[in-house]
Order: sequence, then C-alpha cells, then structure tokens
Amino acid sequence: MDHFADRLVSAIEKKGSPICLGLDPRWESLPDPVRSAALHAHGDTPRARAAAFLAFNRALLDAVADLVPVCKPQVAFYEQFGADGWWALDETVRHAHAQGVLVISDAKRGDIGTTAEAYAQAHLTGTAGALNADALTVNPFMGGDTLRPFLDVCAAHGRGVFALVKTSNPGSGDLQDLVVDGQPLYERVARLVGALGRAHVGSRGFSAVGAVVGATYPAQARRLRELLPETLFLVPGYGAQGGAAQDVAPAFREDGLGAIVNSSRGLIFAYREEAYRTRYGPEGYAEACRAATLAMADELRKVLK
Amino acid sequence: MDHFADRLVSAIEKKGSPICLGLDPRWESLPDPVRSAALHAHGDTPRARAAAFLAFNRALLDAVADLVPVCKPQVAFYEQFGADGWWALDETVRHAHAQGVLVISDAKRGDIGTTAEAYAQAHLTGTAGALNADALTVNPFMGGDTLRPFLDVCAAHGRGVFALVKTSNPGSGDLQDLVVDGQPLYERVARLVGALGRAHVGSRGFSAVGAVVGATYPAQARRLRELLPETLFLVPGYGAQGGAAQDVAPAFREDGLGAIVNSSRGLIFAYREEAYRTRYGPEGYAEACRAATLAMADELRKVLK
Repeated sequence: MDHFADRLVSAIEKKGSPICLGLDPRWESLPDPVRSAALHAHGDTPRARAAAFLAFNRALLDAVADLVPVCKPQVAFYEQFGADGWWALDETVRHAHAQGVLVISDAKRGDIGTTAEAYAQAHLTGTAGALNADALTVNPFMGGDTLRPFLDVCAAHGRGVFALVKTSNPGSGDLQDLVVDGQPLYERVARLVGALGRAHVGSRGFSAVGAVVGATYPAQARRLRELLPETLFLVPGYGAQGGAAQDVAPAFREDGLGAIVNSSRGLIFAYREEAYRTRYGPEGYAEACRAATLAMADELRKVLK
Repeated sequence: MDHFADRLVSAIEKKGSPICLGLDPRWESLPDPVRSAALHAHGDTPRARAAAFLAFNRALLDAVADLVPVCKPQVAFYEQFGADGWWALDETVRHAHAQGVLVISDAKRGDIGTTAEAYAQAHLTGTAGALNADALTVNPFMGGDTLRPFLDVCAAHGRGVFALVKTSNPGSGDLQDLVVDGQPLYERVARLVGALGRAHVGSRGFSAVGAVVGATYPAQARRLRELLPETLFLVPGYGAQGGAAQDVAPAFREDGLGAIVNSSRGLIFAYREEAYRTRYGPEGYAEACRAATLAMADELRKVLK
C-alpha cells in the first residue's frame, strides 16, 4: 500500500478540504428513527446499540464522502459495547473505505514493545479479525521505545500514527506544559515525534508519523508548526470544544497543507442544533451533517485563503 | 459493590500472596494441544485464536485460583482479533470472577472527559456488553481532567484504576525521568495520582487510585513508596522483563502490603522453560503455571519476610 501521508495529502487535494469527520456516536444523541429501527431489529441489547451506530455512520459517510478525505471513529464509544461494538467499528472502517474515505482509529494506544506490536496489529493491518484503519492515534508517555513498534507496522503496511503532543482538553497543561530545561514538555514530545518521523517521510514531503495538536491552543500550534515542518497535524477540538477556524489556521503550513481538522459533534449531531433542526429534523440527520460539513469547509477556506 | 482496594487487600490476605497473573496469551506460544483443539473446532479463523486464548486462560485460572488474588489480561493481545478477541476477553473476566480472582483490565486508556467516561463504562461496569473488570490501567499524559471521569465510575461501582507513573520499559525515562523544578516528571505524576486518590481511600487505608511502578526501577519504587503511602502499586516487569524479588521489595510497605506483582510470560508460558519443560510438557501447561506461581510466591515471601 502507498505511503500513508501521500495517500492523505492526495485525498485532501481531491476532496478540496482538510476536514476529518469525527465518528463519535452516542446512543442518547442518535436520531429517534435510527434508534427505533435498531431496537425493532435487535431488542434492547448491546447489538442494537452497535447496529444503530453502524447505520448512523454509514448514512453520514454516504452523505459526505465527496467532501471529507478522512474520518476518525473514537474507539471508546464502540468499546462500550464490547464485541458488538468492535463489530460496528470494523464495519464502519469497511464502509468508509468503500466510499473512498480514509480512517484514523482514535484509540490513543501505547504500551511496551511486544504489546505495542499487538496494538499496531490490532488496528493497522486488517488481518485475522483486526481493524484495517489507515492510521492510529498513540500516546507517547511511556517513551520512544514504545512508539517504534507502531512505526515498523506503518512502514510495512503503508499506515500512519498521530502521537499526542498538545491535546485539546483544559487540563492538557497538567503535564504537557511543565517546563523542562526551559522548554514545555510538549515541545520535547514534539522533538521526539519529529525525530522518529524523519525516516518515514513520503514523496509529498510529509511523514507517516503525525502529531495531535488541539485547536484550543493556537499559539502552541504555531510554535509546533515551526518545529515540525514535515509532520501532519491532527487537530481535534473544533466546534463543540471551542476551537474556531482562525484557531486552527496556525496548524497549517503556508501552502495550506499540513493539517486535518476534526469535528465530531458539530457535524454528526448537526441535526440537533438550532441552525439545522427545523430544516432537516431527525430523519434528515445525514443531510444536516452534509450542510454542516459544507459550512465548516467554507469557514476553513476563508482562513486558509 | 465494596471498595476496590478493600477487596484487593482482602484477596491478597486470603490467597497469601501479592501475585498478579498476567494473562497475555500469544498464539505462537500457546501449547500445541490448545491450538490444535481450537483449529479443529473453528478452522483457521480469528475465532479459533480467540477460543484458544479463552481455553488457555480458563485452564490457568483453574490451576492457580487458590494462589493469586488477581489477574491482568493485557487487552492488546485480545484486541488483535477484533470482536472475537473481545468475546474471549469478556469470557476470561467472567471465568476469573467465577474462580474468585479479581481482574485488572490492562488497557492503558486515557482520553478527554466524555471519552474517558466511555472507556470507564467499557471496562468497569459489566453493563450493556461492557467488560466487568475490577480495575483498569490508565495513562495520565492528557492531564488530571482526563482521569477524573474514571474515578467517578470507580466510586459508583466499587472499581479502581492504576495510573502509569514509572513504567518498566527501558525507554520509560524519555519523558518520565525529565526534570521539572528539580523533580523527575514521574514524581509530579505521582503527586497528581496521590492527590486524586485521597478522596477514594477505603477502610483498609488504601485508595482506589493505584499506580503502575515497574519492577525494573527499584530505587524509584522506594521513593514513590515514601511519597504515596495510601497508594496500591501494580508492579509489572517481574521475571521475563528482568525484575527479581529483591527489586520489587521497595514497592511494598513495612507491613508487607501495598503492592501486587505481575508476571506474565514467566507464569503462563512456564511450560516452555527449561525448569518445567521436561516435567510437564505441553499438555501440562497449567500444572507448570501452578509450579511457577508457587515458586514466585516463595521468592516474594523471602524478601517480604
């Protein structure tokens, strides 16, 4: 398979937007018709919830596949329903690929050597029951030797990782902002990520080793963009978490490439919001998602010129 | 359900050992008879591998349930086989409980607020398809606000967490040993863990918020034991990773409580080792595990007096 970063950059150019569709379904926020259909088919079981997630995701992907290069299921929401949840996650990945949308498994895994290998196998290979995601988010806290096994699998299978560098949550500073030798810890992590990624740069100039940089910290994103010219940023925190278009602009390079911007609630649950509710209603949730995605693409286009 | 730390301390006293059985099965290391039976029943499928893991785990748990208070499946090894792997993991948890053995889900999860809630639900509740583990390992890199949702679920359901503080791998120092205001980062994390745990201390004097402290760093364990008198330590790295009995002694308090020591390969794959191979053979893998567990209990008893 081709290099992950090359595939992602091509997809961004083809779709004309850097939007990542965050597939973070929650049972209580799903449209009534989706829940009713699943309960009717499966009773009040974990399978019903998983089936509802899958039906919802498929409809959303069908509605925005021409607009978004990549989607990002948040694994926790599927993991809640055990084996049924993993079935829905696996089928979601298949459907995204069938629709020409890349997949980042947002699982934030990280562990010692042989265990990290198993996580890489579990998410990035598509063999023997494993997920077939194109990239995986990873947690660097345990050190460089716990990231390397992921990179071996990425190199062998044309996949990528996004390592947490500066996350979008209010408490991200508890550890990430601590000052080490005059530098915040997230810069140290960034240097580690940059160093690991250097051997994995594709033909479009970006590494298969990306970084997670929250939309809620634009000043830090600007500094990290300087430090990591070859690193793709996955930028969460847009919309519901408070990040706006001008906040994500610093994550991009001058040429308008270098980042993907994730929105979850703002896109997938657009049908619940004031701006779309009356027009689309619960039945029109996928159309509402498309309208919100088009609006987000416009917002980004303005700040990226 | 009773407080997690109270339940764990009772189990340690009842079984007379602080051993945690690390259930980290690998297909290629399983005894031939276990693999053959699974392939015969399920063909060469992910289900066969998952079924083999489960059969292996059940036999091991049956063999050592009177010796070990707690077991710790490493989730990555199950996750490799997707939905089938999660089925085997869930059934392993059930079997451990049926045999009177507590379960720590070693998943090292960590994410922002609502996602952390979903992970807590996924591992620590046993409802709607979720795992019913007694405790979960968590990664603190994203900050205190990402740990709190786990604690709410722990308090409501009598469960616990073990937060990564100083891990057993060679590269753990990359971030954890960096010096912040004259202190290594792992001490900062330890203080955060201690502060979060203070509101969750049970009747036996230990908190439901534990810490992961690798057997391979005894000097750091000694310091952390001083800093965190109410914190239970989960100590990985015994045996195959290089930690010996004298290395884990500093993780315990003077009264011989305060830590559980995990061994995975050294116990579950004892049948492959020189010391047990001839006597037990592949058919006797569970008896070999029991012999290795008894030997480990003796080693620990000597250093803990």
